[in-house]
Amino acid sequence: MPVTVVGSIAFDSVRTPFGERERMLGGAAVHFALAASFFDEVHVVGPVGDDFGEAELDVLRRRNIDTSGIERVADGKTFFWRAEYGWDLNNRETLETALGVFERFEPTLSAKARASDVVFLANIQPDLQRRVRAQCLDTRFAALDTMNLWIDTARPSLVKAINEVDCVIINDAELRQLADRPSLVGAAREVLSWSTTPGRAVVAKLGEYGAALITRDGYFSIPAFPLETVVDPTGAGDSFAGGFIGYVAAQRHKHLTPTLLRRAMAYGTAIASFNVEEFGTDRVARLRMDEVDERVTDLRRMTAFA
Amino acid sequence: MPVTVVGSIAFDSVRTPFGERERMLGGAAVHFALAASFFDEVHVVGPVGDDFGEAELDVLRRRNIDTSGIERVADGKTFFWRAEYGWDLNNRETLETALGVFERFEPTLSAKARASDVVFLANIQPDLQRRVRAQCLDTRFAALDTMNLWIDTARPSLVKAINEVDCVIINDAELRQLADRPSLVGAAREVLSWSTTPGRAVVAKLGEYGAALITRDGYFSIPAFPLETVVDPTGAGDSFAGGFIGYVAAQRHKHLTPTLLRRAMAYGTAIASFNVEEFGTDRVARLRMDEVDERVTDLRRMTAFA
Repeated sequence: MPVTVVGSIAFDSVRTPFGERERMLGGAAVHFALAASFFDEVHVVGPVGDDFGEAELDVLRRRNIDTSGIERVADGKTFFWRAEYGWDLNNRETLETALGVFERFEPTLSAKARASDVVFLANIQPDLQRRVRAQCLDTRFAALDTMNLWIDTARPSLVKAINEVDCVIINDAELRQLADRPSLVGAAREVLSWSTTPGRAVVAKLGEYGAALITRDGYFSIPAFPLETVVDPTGAGDSFAGGFIGYVAAQRHKHLTPTLLRRAMAYGTAIASFNVEEFGTDRVARLRMDEVDERVTDLRRMTAFA
Repeated sequence: MPVTVVGSIAFDSVRTPFGERERMLGGAAVHFALAASFFDEVHVVGPVGDDFGEAELDVLRRRNIDTSGIERVADGKTFFWRAEYGWDLNNRETLETALGVFERFEPTLSAKARASDVVFLANIQPDLQRRVRAQCLDTRFAALDTMNLWIDTARPSLVKAINEVDCVIINDAELRQLADRPSLVGAAREVLSWSTTPGRAVVAKLGEYGAALITRDGYFSIPAFPLETVVDPTGAGDSFAGGFIGYVAAQRHKHLTPTLLRRAMAYGTAIASFNVEEFGTDRVARLRMDEVDERVTDLRRMTAFA
């Protein structure tokens, strides 16, 4: 089933203990799309400025991602983000954010993008997320990501947006904040209780500790793939979401069983682990599916006990 | 195989979002011993003051723990610790530490305590740990815990102590600090490289995220048991260590295979999850083995994927 992702397409300038890069291709929709492209057809929707070139589009096209929904705004500037990571890569400081064309972005999806069975609303203003969601009438599975900014400034809209999707993918600290509950599982169950739609799920991203999948009657946890060296954590969460949602999409009309969702978590985890091994999109852009499969097998071995 | 644990026996005054308790029975050796007592004979070694009474000893004796190695110092005061936990229980502030009898503690193990096949050196000054280790000549499996204070103030001794044991059980942030390596697995492999003794292991305690077992050629990760409510996290790490080491000890003369160590991690995880559900030792003191087994089964279910 094709996947549509709506979110940021960006230039990222990042400094980590392993080096510094200027204006790399980035943004949530980009990292998501590259990861999801290992599983199914992907349509990316988002705005860029006229500083966004063919070289950037080619990174997506080489993975057969449909870039026709990338809206180029004349005289606009592509979303820009500059950040610096600390010694152990768990702390990062945002040094600069320039919304550029994102400031006036109003997504209008093409017929093709609307027709996707699966839609991912990357971390953008929740009213925008809702307006995208409302355009995707045939969607069988919709998911969103969000952040503390929207919890602080647009909570009522965010709660509505959450109740219009099947799955929330969110950092664990933000999940606790959203639900105002100190425990991860308590917070997830609280968010699930806001809507009675069956089969809803919360995926908590735990950073270097992995991810947890919480449903009304189930709990699954998977660690991050252990790496001796993490070069650039930027986009790890979006790569995870892309692998997870991409795997779900590729199951076509199958019922979303716990088994299938767990395997999707493992694929998301594996792809995210490649993403952080090099700067920006470098590693995932040349990733092969057999490498992904191998890490999924490793993860199964690293978590099993008799 | 009997287990000897040397470490703190304490009174803890703790405030958490769920309430406040004064002078509860606590200390690393106590939490460890209670957890390990589910698997084998346990000898506790540590000093207390004359403020330590029969009621406290009875908590240990009721679990058939040998308390004859608890040294009562006349006119001394039992180690005291006061702390307060924040909203999500991940941050705690130590408000008061009074070493009391611990200040001049020089452990001399009884013949029985020395003869244990398994010894756990809870978090105490590394020179003390080494002097205990040197008394246990028949030990088949020795493990230690440590903390940032000793990394900062007694690093050369600590490195020697580490190289004299089979297993280091340590919080992940402290492991990174100890090895001066930002990645968990990189730090663990660095510590393992300090000695060529075969079969060595590092267990990284990840707090609410669980624990990881790193050996020269293996990696295993297990999440914490998901709880909607954590009342008091004090002693979770020591309960984990007690369950882990206790399970290892109970395997008698079996070879310590990866399978066995992984199962030990699950038992440690299960017992730690009970520890934090009530204040101090309250929950573990009345815990039943069938409840522990049930959580181990649940953990297996919560981490498996096909």
